[in-house]
Amino acid sequence: MSEILRVGIAGLGTVGGAVVRLLATQASDLAARTGRKIVLVGVSARDPSRERGIDLADVEWFAGPVELAASDKIDLFVELIGGDEGPARASVEAALRTGKSVVTANKALLAKHGIALARLAEQHHAALAFEASVAGGIPIVKTLREGLAGNSIERVYGVLNGTCNYILSRMELEGLSFAECLAEAQKLGYAEADPTFDIGGFDTAHKLAILTSLAFGVKLDAEAISVEGIQDISLADLHAARELGYRVKLLGVAQRTPHGVEQRVHPTMVPLSSPIAQVMGVTNAVTVDADAVNELTLVGPGAGGMATASAVVADIADIARGIRSAPFGLPVDHLTAPEKSPMQRHEGGYYIRLAVRNQIGAAAAIAARMAQHEISLESIVQRRACASNGSVAPVVLVTYATTETSVREALAAILADGHVAEKPQVIRIERE
Amino acid sequence: MSEILRVGIAGLGTVGGAVVRLLATQASDLAARTGRKIVLVGVSARDPSRERGIDLADVEWFAGPVELAASDKIDLFVELIGGDEGPARASVEAALRTGKSVVTANKALLAKHGIALARLAEQHHAALAFEASVAGGIPIVKTLREGLAGNSIERVYGVLNGTCNYILSRMELEGLSFAECLAEAQKLGYAEADPTFDIGGFDTAHKLAILTSLAFGVKLDAEAISVEGIQDISLADLHAARELGYRVKLLGVAQRTPHGVEQRVHPTMVPLSSPIAQVMGVTNAVTVDADAVNELTLVGPGAGGMATASAVVADIADIARGIRSAPFGLPVDHLTAPEKSPMQRHEGGYYIRLAVRNQIGAAAAIAARMAQHEISLESIVQRRACASNGSVAPVVLVTYATTETSVREALAAILADGHVAEKPQVIRIERE
Repeated sequence: MSEILRVGIAGLGTVGGAVVRLLATQASDLAARTGRKIVLVGVSARDPSRERGIDLADVEWFAGPVELAASDKIDLFVELIGGDEGPARASVEAALRTGKSVVTANKALLAKHGIALARLAEQHHAALAFEASVAGGIPIVKTLREGLAGNSIERVYGVLNGTCNYILSRMELEGLSFAECLAEAQKLGYAEADPTFDIGGFDTAHKLAILTSLAFGVKLDAEAISVEGIQDISLADLHAARELGYRVKLLGVAQRTPHGVEQRVHPTMVPLSSPIAQVMGVTNAVTVDADAVNELTLVGPGAGGMATASAVVADIADIARGIRSAPFGLPVDHLTAPEKSPMQRHEGGYYIRLAVRNQIGAAAAIAARMAQHEISLESIVQRRACASNGSVAPVVLVTYATTETSVREALAAILADGHVAEKPQVIRIERE
Repeated sequence: MSEILRVGIAGLGTVGGAVVRLLATQASDLAARTGRKIVLVGVSARDPSRERGIDLADVEWFAGPVELAASDKIDLFVELIGGDEGPARASVEAALRTGKSVVTANKALLAKHGIALARLAEQHHAALAFEASVAGGIPIVKTLREGLAGNSIERVYGVLNGTCNYILSRMELEGLSFAECLAEAQKLGYAEADPTFDIGGFDTAHKLAILTSLAFGVKLDAEAISVEGIQDISLADLHAARELGYRVKLLGVAQRTPHGVEQRVHPTMVPLSSPIAQVMGVTNAVTVDADAVNELTLVGPGAGGMATASAVVADIADIARGIRSAPFGLPVDHLTAPEKSPMQRHEGGYYIRLAVRNQIGAAAAIAARMAQHEISLESIVQRRACASNGSVAPVVLVTYATTETSVREALAAILADGHVAEKPQVIRIERE
């Protein structure tokens, strides 16, 4: 295997430019590692005339990504356009159909069409690699697909969105509000003008869908994921968490349960001593619980041009070496349709913050409602009512393991009783 | 590639037994993942009659590991005997010479003969895989060899010995002495009757030699490693570290410097906020600093039968899939002989604890000696002399970056001045 591997890259933004640079600076090392010369021969981008600070003198420009993908001048197509339809999907399909291997960082495309694309790759004996699509520079796809091949995985969870983690970290460390931190993240370029996709948990859900398939040998099903964002997390929650020995993180969690695979994205209390609680700022982390390895955590950069390019280049090197793993670990026909475990069946501990009216019997009524729904309380913390609102006192409850249904029914009854002044805040607890 | 992969295992201790179990329980999943049936066909062990709780009914017993390794009844030889000479070396060589791929967990063998074995593997087109040899279940070998292929690595460091980390963690958390914690570790089976190999840093050095080769593309050279153990760490150091915002870990560190690759094993102050500082008990962790990915940390079980078996089985699966990476990332002829950077040239911050005699002018004399050797001090903490020894007061100095030579010369001068009552304690600081 000494022939040249001819690479085409569609999309020359931050990541694409970084891939071009890495392929150039690491060229001789990559050739030695893989036994083949890896040469960038073709590119396409929306604006070919833009100055990118990269050397493309010997590289052919193609009219568009599909033309590049279908060309017999390349062996490997790198898709860095983005989007779950349009040119991204069309070009990846064109490459696979002509038997070319594909490397992509496109989590949205995979979350929506991953199984169809994996099938296409199998039919045409091509590789479909996407290390960069989840947790940036962290090699979690390779770890799940190859490194833990001897394990039966119980749970995979992680901090998969740097924007949310940056905001939660800043809120806690600087005592700022959610709105202030979001504005700051937008100014620093960590958050989009419309932040819904990050803040609302949808970006995390796309990544989780990919991890779930790799971890449990099931077909991707982003629709099966229960998604809640961080927009309602207040400073009061972060401080209460700390007092209780927890920290709040937006987690994506996929878990084997007796009812099937449970997939959920939501703000979560994690023990302060857990590796994942230490992950601050835009850093990402993924923890895998498995029967043989017990607990493994990977911590690293979740985004950024160079970190993402690192993952793209590792995929290119694997393909150059001739590695052809099934995209999602198992051949598509071996992937099962997951039995979805609905969120109502989720079992775990809960943090509940109530704004309780200062009425005689309020506490007793709340406790009675919890008992009625067979919820045991691990702790209750009641604070003095704050000066500005003397008639309402914050009460924080932490429950032992119970079900989502019990919590929802108990809270509905408590609301109906009229003792609480605001919508209760509910945060699930994830234990190690 | 659908023929059966026939596996032979030499050594049926804790790890060997766990590998047998994993191959059995994961058989159908492994076949689906790799496209081949993986079948255990032969074993050898010192005492065939011992009850191991594993099913070996269909497996042939061989007279010894070399007979098994050389047999044409197997395609892949798994060496789990241990030791850097004798049957381990002979059997691995016999397997490679007959063109069989080898999986081993034997860090001592690799540290001593890794390059010769890698060359033998190349000559016979066989794989030589050793994920289990470093940090147990953590896939750090795969990460360095494949996952970071696009990176130029600056530094790799980690907690690589669970025994030492257990002892340091217990000392700090329970306020126990080194001797008490060592005795406890021995009782729990975490430390050998002769603990020198772990406590003295030699086990960490073997693992570091392997990581250094993978990270920097240099030939293994365990002899080039400067090694200090944890036997002289006292509770006073752990408490002083905490006050200063650090924690003491036994680290293996390999680092690119202007003078070559520096390899060292020693007790180290790491910032309390760093991922590596959070790693307590028998857990291991490795951090890689690289140009593209910036900082990546892997945390997981460093030992234990099942965790180590997880790594062995992942190697077996890779070989079943046909993956043939160069054992140390690059072909042997591409590995350079490292320019060794001697410890005297090490540059960094230092923690220095002195037992200073209560003499007029002592502090001034010490400060003058440090200044004379151009050492800037970041902090000085002097405590009241303790009751039992009123004439001696502990003084802790933390330096800005300086060289090992300067520190050693300054301390020699301070000792000669007669102001300190005991051998100074020196702990290097590793910053993120």
